[in-house]
Amino acid sequence: MRIMKAGEFKLEREVEYGTPEQNRTVQDILERVRTEGDAAVLELTERFDKVKLQASELRVTDEEIQAAYGRVEPAFVEALRRASANIRAFHEKQKRSSWMDVQPDGTILGQVLRPLRRVGLYVPGGKAAYPSSVLMNAIPAQVAGVPEIVMVTPASTGGQAGIDPYILVAAAEAGIREMYRVGGAQAVGALAYGTATIPPVDKIVGPGNIYVALAKRYVYGVVDIDSIAGPSEILVIADDSADPGYIAADLLSQAEHDEMASAILVTTSTALAEAVRAEVARQLEPLPRKAIAEQSIRERGAILIAASDDEAVATSNRLAPEHLELLVREPFGWLGRIENAGAIFLGPYSTEPVGDYYAGPNHILPTNGTARFSSPLNVDDFVKKSSVIHYSKEALLRGGEDIMTLAKHEGLEAHARAVQIRLEKEGKRT
Amino acid sequence: MRIMKAGEFKLEREVEYGTPEQNRTVQDILERVRTEGDAAVLELTERFDKVKLQASELRVTDEEIQAAYGRVEPAFVEALRRASANIRAFHEKQKRSSWMDVQPDGTILGQVLRPLRRVGLYVPGGKAAYPSSVLMNAIPAQVAGVPEIVMVTPASTGGQAGIDPYILVAAAEAGIREMYRVGGAQAVGALAYGTATIPPVDKIVGPGNIYVALAKRYVYGVVDIDSIAGPSEILVIADDSADPGYIAADLLSQAEHDEMASAILVTTSTALAEAVRAEVARQLEPLPRKAIAEQSIRERGAILIAASDDEAVATSNRLAPEHLELLVREPFGWLGRIENAGAIFLGPYSTEPVGDYYAGPNHILPTNGTARFSSPLNVDDFVKKSSVIHYSKEALLRGGEDIMTLAKHEGLEAHARAVQIRLEKEGKRT
Repeated sequence: MRIMKAGEFKLEREVEYGTPEQNRTVQDILERVRTEGDAAVLELTERFDKVKLQASELRVTDEEIQAAYGRVEPAFVEALRRASANIRAFHEKQKRSSWMDVQPDGTILGQVLRPLRRVGLYVPGGKAAYPSSVLMNAIPAQVAGVPEIVMVTPASTGGQAGIDPYILVAAAEAGIREMYRVGGAQAVGALAYGTATIPPVDKIVGPGNIYVALAKRYVYGVVDIDSIAGPSEILVIADDSADPGYIAADLLSQAEHDEMASAILVTTSTALAEAVRAEVARQLEPLPRKAIAEQSIRERGAILIAASDDEAVATSNRLAPEHLELLVREPFGWLGRIENAGAIFLGPYSTEPVGDYYAGPNHILPTNGTARFSSPLNVDDFVKKSSVIHYSKEALLRGGEDIMTLAKHEGLEAHARAVQIRLEKEGKRT
Repeated sequence: MRIMKAGEFKLEREVEYGTPEQNRTVQDILERVRTEGDAAVLELTERFDKVKLQASELRVTDEEIQAAYGRVEPAFVEALRRASANIRAFHEKQKRSSWMDVQPDGTILGQVLRPLRRVGLYVPGGKAAYPSSVLMNAIPAQVAGVPEIVMVTPASTGGQAGIDPYILVAAAEAGIREMYRVGGAQAVGALAYGTATIPPVDKIVGPGNIYVALAKRYVYGVVDIDSIAGPSEILVIADDSADPGYIAADLLSQAEHDEMASAILVTTSTALAEAVRAEVARQLEPLPRKAIAEQSIRERGAILIAASDDEAVATSNRLAPEHLELLVREPFGWLGRIENAGAIFLGPYSTEPVGDYYAGPNHILPTNGTARFSSPLNVDDFVKKSSVIHYSKEALLRGGEDIMTLAKHEGLEAHARAVQIRLEKEGKRT
């Protein structure tokens, strides 16, 4: 693992737009699903997922969901339930109320908050089918009060057009009752435009491959989407009080995700830097995903030596990591200076997997430096606001001339007249 | 103005992706600005805006801003100040605090809210340069606490590389001190990537033509953007207590925006429908923007007859209008059933221009049916959240095995080990 000066480190980041061919493919799929509905969904599912289905077989049955519980270990279900309870409790604290501002003259201004009506959750197939992500996507929507949460996931997962039972159990535990065995861009199209079998949604969330990501970009505007996730990242700020073994383990837990993941330590202690380097090499050996983690550490990992605590903080703020661990003596003393980070883990017991699975905060976090401007997935993402304006006669009489002045300046005479006709009726203008 | 049954009305909506050529042009401009910086900005400004500038002339000087005050009427400045005060007061009520949940075992979970550091506001040139939009974009950012708000607007506006003095005054009143005379896709590129003269921002807001809209789509991910605005819309639900003259005036205030704007009345009263049709024809005649309003009313406007109040509400919810006026006897009795609307205007004195200019709620609203899932521009749009996780030793010892169970199921052994190494150190595992 390379050791270098913090000021010299730069993380290359790119927004993924796909190749022209991938874009064409996705546009074609979306257009077919939009115009042909179920027929296109079924044909594309046969072509890409090698599963031949009737429209009536798209929806996962209650029996399959029940049967899935018999195929997973009880310890898994129990762990999932405790995780769900923690996630639900944290997200409950994000809920907000509608409000109004009642003014002395009778004017009422306000903001009404309502949950979205229907949300679609995309769950990838194969190894990327993470039960934890099902919880993290579905529970905030459920806490927000979304009445219809629907899951789509590719048919081939688990073989025989079945779905991974762990995914089914996670979805059921998160309160999802409506699930369809369809994946890829065709699933995104079905959720956005609706088919005879799959009614359209208002928002699509959840990770997927490049085709899914591109499809989400294209349907944005027809429906809402969540952010497009980039490679996972951790940055650890540590001082010489930190345990090098803990740091190495935490860096590796990020590196094992994929070769593009980045794991970075920033410290003012060169002794710690050396110790962590040795620990990373030692702990890397027995990992099942050693090849992935090793490449990530070699190509995207770094131990950065900062000249001061200030430089350590500035480096972290510059990189805007998805996950930030503060393994320092007084971590809360640092919190106020952290400007950009998706989730901040303070102290030795707050290892990143605590947040990935269990503590309650969401693990769907801004990647690729977007913590500069975006936020962990949260209840607000499933709520829409409407402004409320109930102007009193008195308020209109008082402000009417100002409104007409501003509207007329902008050349919008009919705007001015909509006020004027009311002032005239009240005898305040002729 | 056509009168038809509510159930038969459909509004065609399309998401604007631009032509392939427009997309290529925008990509080329962005790439040039990204790699060549100021040189590209200046050359493109000369080419598109016909204004030849040095880099040192891009920034609007304090003297120009001061001089602008001498070029606008005092009544305009006073109206603008009262509008600003109302807008600021409303948005102040949207502010939220960071919070933490301190648990009995010492665990602290929470959410830190911080304003974005730097936001760019695009203001179009020519007739689309609306001082009211400057206020509506800038004030929420300012209330959120964004320390750097920067405005860009095309150089040619107002001639001689000057900027419309009304825009300068509005920006100054909204607290903006950093302004650049650059427009189009090159301005979006400069804000996203930064140049020697124009430091990069974290988010770009504000309306623009198709090139600006496409450029915002492309830089999304590098920076955040606001939503892409579609044509403006109003839907009025009225009963026979409503004044046909008011309704017609309000419909026309929307129709005058542009030919694509849509103005719709939904009512159960055929007598009202006929009266409004006559009033629209009468009030249309003297309007300076008659041609635009007439085309909008003819092609995109409609008077819809609903069989019941329920159908009227369902029609409105289906169309998800940007602006909704409830010109009915007991408008607050209807509010709870309105699912999708950007801003809801209740009662006879709450004509839409009250919201466009003055009352305080934002006039930047979800268009094109996106009120199903999106919200008026608000303070949250300029705030980012970070999750905070400070797990106690006790919490980790209690939940550690669950975390390991979940991580191992997902094949993420290094995640499990990051917990295990800590449990081992505490003697809870070997």
